[in-house]
Amino acid sequence: MKLATYKDGTRDGQLVVVAKDLSQAHYASGIASRLQQVLDDWNFLAPQLQDLYDTLNQGKARHAFPFDPRMCMAPLPRAYQWADGSAYINHVELVRASRHAKVPDSYYTDPLMYQGGSDDFLGPTDDVVCVSEDHGIDFEAELAVITGDVPMGTDADAALDGIRLLMLANDVSLRHLIPDELAKGFGFFQSKPATAFGPVAVTPDELGEAWQHGRVHLTVQSTWNGRKVGMCEAGPEMTFHFGQLIAHICKTRNVRAGSIVGSGTISNKGIDNGGQKEWPKGYSCIAEKRAIETILDGQPSTAYMKFNDTIRIEIKGLDGQSVFGAIDQKIAPLA
Amino acid sequence: MKLATYKDGTRDGQLVVVAKDLSQAHYASGIASRLQQVLDDWNFLAPQLQDLYDTLNQGKARHAFPFDPRMCMAPLPRAYQWADGSAYINHVELVRASRHAKVPDSYYTDPLMYQGGSDDFLGPTDDVVCVSEDHGIDFEAELAVITGDVPMGTDADAALDGIRLLMLANDVSLRHLIPDELAKGFGFFQSKPATAFGPVAVTPDELGEAWQHGRVHLTVQSTWNGRKVGMCEAGPEMTFHFGQLIAHICKTRNVRAGSIVGSGTISNKGIDNGGQKEWPKGYSCIAEKRAIETILDGQPSTAYMKFNDTIRIEIKGLDGQSVFGAIDQKIAPLA
Repeated sequence: MKLATYKDGTRDGQLVVVAKDLSQAHYASGIASRLQQVLDDWNFLAPQLQDLYDTLNQGKARHAFPFDPRMCMAPLPRAYQWADGSAYINHVELVRASRHAKVPDSYYTDPLMYQGGSDDFLGPTDDVVCVSEDHGIDFEAELAVITGDVPMGTDADAALDGIRLLMLANDVSLRHLIPDELAKGFGFFQSKPATAFGPVAVTPDELGEAWQHGRVHLTVQSTWNGRKVGMCEAGPEMTFHFGQLIAHICKTRNVRAGSIVGSGTISNKGIDNGGQKEWPKGYSCIAEKRAIETILDGQPSTAYMKFNDTIRIEIKGLDGQSVFGAIDQKIAPLA
Repeated sequence: MKLATYKDGTRDGQLVVVAKDLSQAHYASGIASRLQQVLDDWNFLAPQLQDLYDTLNQGKARHAFPFDPRMCMAPLPRAYQWADGSAYINHVELVRASRHAKVPDSYYTDPLMYQGGSDDFLGPTDDVVCVSEDHGIDFEAELAVITGDVPMGTDADAALDGIRLLMLANDVSLRHLIPDELAKGFGFFQSKPATAFGPVAVTPDELGEAWQHGRVHLTVQSTWNGRKVGMCEAGPEMTFHFGQLIAHICKTRNVRAGSIVGSGTISNKGIDNGGQKEWPKGYSCIAEKRAIETILDGQPSTAYMKFNDTIRIEIKGLDGQSVFGAIDQKIAPLA
């Protein structure tokens, strides 16, 4: 099923069930008003939402209305955890290669993850409000899962059973603030402003054959200022699957219902075209494009985002239809 | 006023108002059932809770009952943000001096903070469940504040107005997991299991003269296995006050109601006693004791905590009474 959260002036919004083709929606009132409520009591509430979803898809839901992604908050407008991985090692390899640094061996066995802020997420069409263009504003197209309760010590395969929903994410980064912040060793704060999520969260069965053991075998499209810059494959090159990312977090602590776990920037290896290295699938964040330029030309030529720039991120399913709806945001200055 | 959350089998517990002397409590039902609800709508709900608090202190509350800290969850059993600082630079200086490293100059002007997990906090008497004694189990006695909404770009002084409540915290650390984790540069995950909080959260006015411009001028007592090991002054040596810590977080993003911001281990400078360096106030975490031993003797002699060890953390107010109640926990193995 597909779930979204409609803006209603409150902090948590109103839960709606959305039709498979994203054409219609229906308030979940009578079942649950907020998505966190459903995650807290999944086994009881999810089947009721599934019934409403089936009825909606059959065109028989009584109070259906046209679905409008502009009405959406993030499916979870605030969450108790946002743990983001860097699960596509190719991204790390590219960024490091551009500064002649090697990837430590441990990175291939031990996922790189950071704890992000989860008190203030953005909806799919909300402006990305930034203090300054000088901060190096970048998008990052990612996939994310929302978990149920996963007890301390759960292994990677068992952790897959803890995945309730999948989402699309734009993990906005302020690139020029990252080096100083990471040099302090305690992770990110100022270099990671609010993350945005796609209009609907979907259960794994919505992906059909594209969902394989914790990986999504679909293409992520990133369109920057109307120009398609990325058509990256999310599946085969995901070094750590979502079960491995969850297991990393719950090694010494419980992961509780409503935790969001992200994949990190989706990234594909380049190919060798007659001695010339090329990246035909493009990029899911500008930092990666700049790393490629640095490897090829000795320096980056693509600038980061400016105010009024737009970024659109979307994934089409095996049936050609949009799975999550599109993230479609504009960069805006702090008023 | 003083607020606590009673265990009732749900994830968020039941909000209770607690008398100033911690003797009696009263369910806040009719006003609010959960603390997050109050933080979401503070200006409307806090005065109603204050009225109940006043009535309770006058011995006139109709359904008062004896307050039992063992019934308490963390005041916020789960939160949308847990941002912990390292605001006592002396702690950083000691730990670095023990390994002959200097503190970078920027540490005196730019707070060191990490984003912690906030989906699964411990109550004041809950066991600290650990996977292994070999992880180097340590307590950390800290103060923390809970904020209201603080908009992006708020400065340090204005951020003080965003402080709603204060708490006592035990930010458990797994010391032997820290070096490898921090070397990756993305901050903590496995080395920071669930944090515990003291029984009651209090409004700043409860501290009277001890609350001065974002600092708490009181003594934090830490008792390990029944032996008092720390009597540390929380006020004068707090390098960054709570307003500065909040301003650090909200430089590029909004901080939303219910965010918890911690001080980091409370730490006091040593004194020179006739050419001999001494630390008469003791320590608020074992890592600091071991750093002192390393500075004095070339190596640490105090081991980290074992299963069944106990840790008690408490702060007495200017009137000699316990402000927050005591954190009183036992280390336990994962079942």
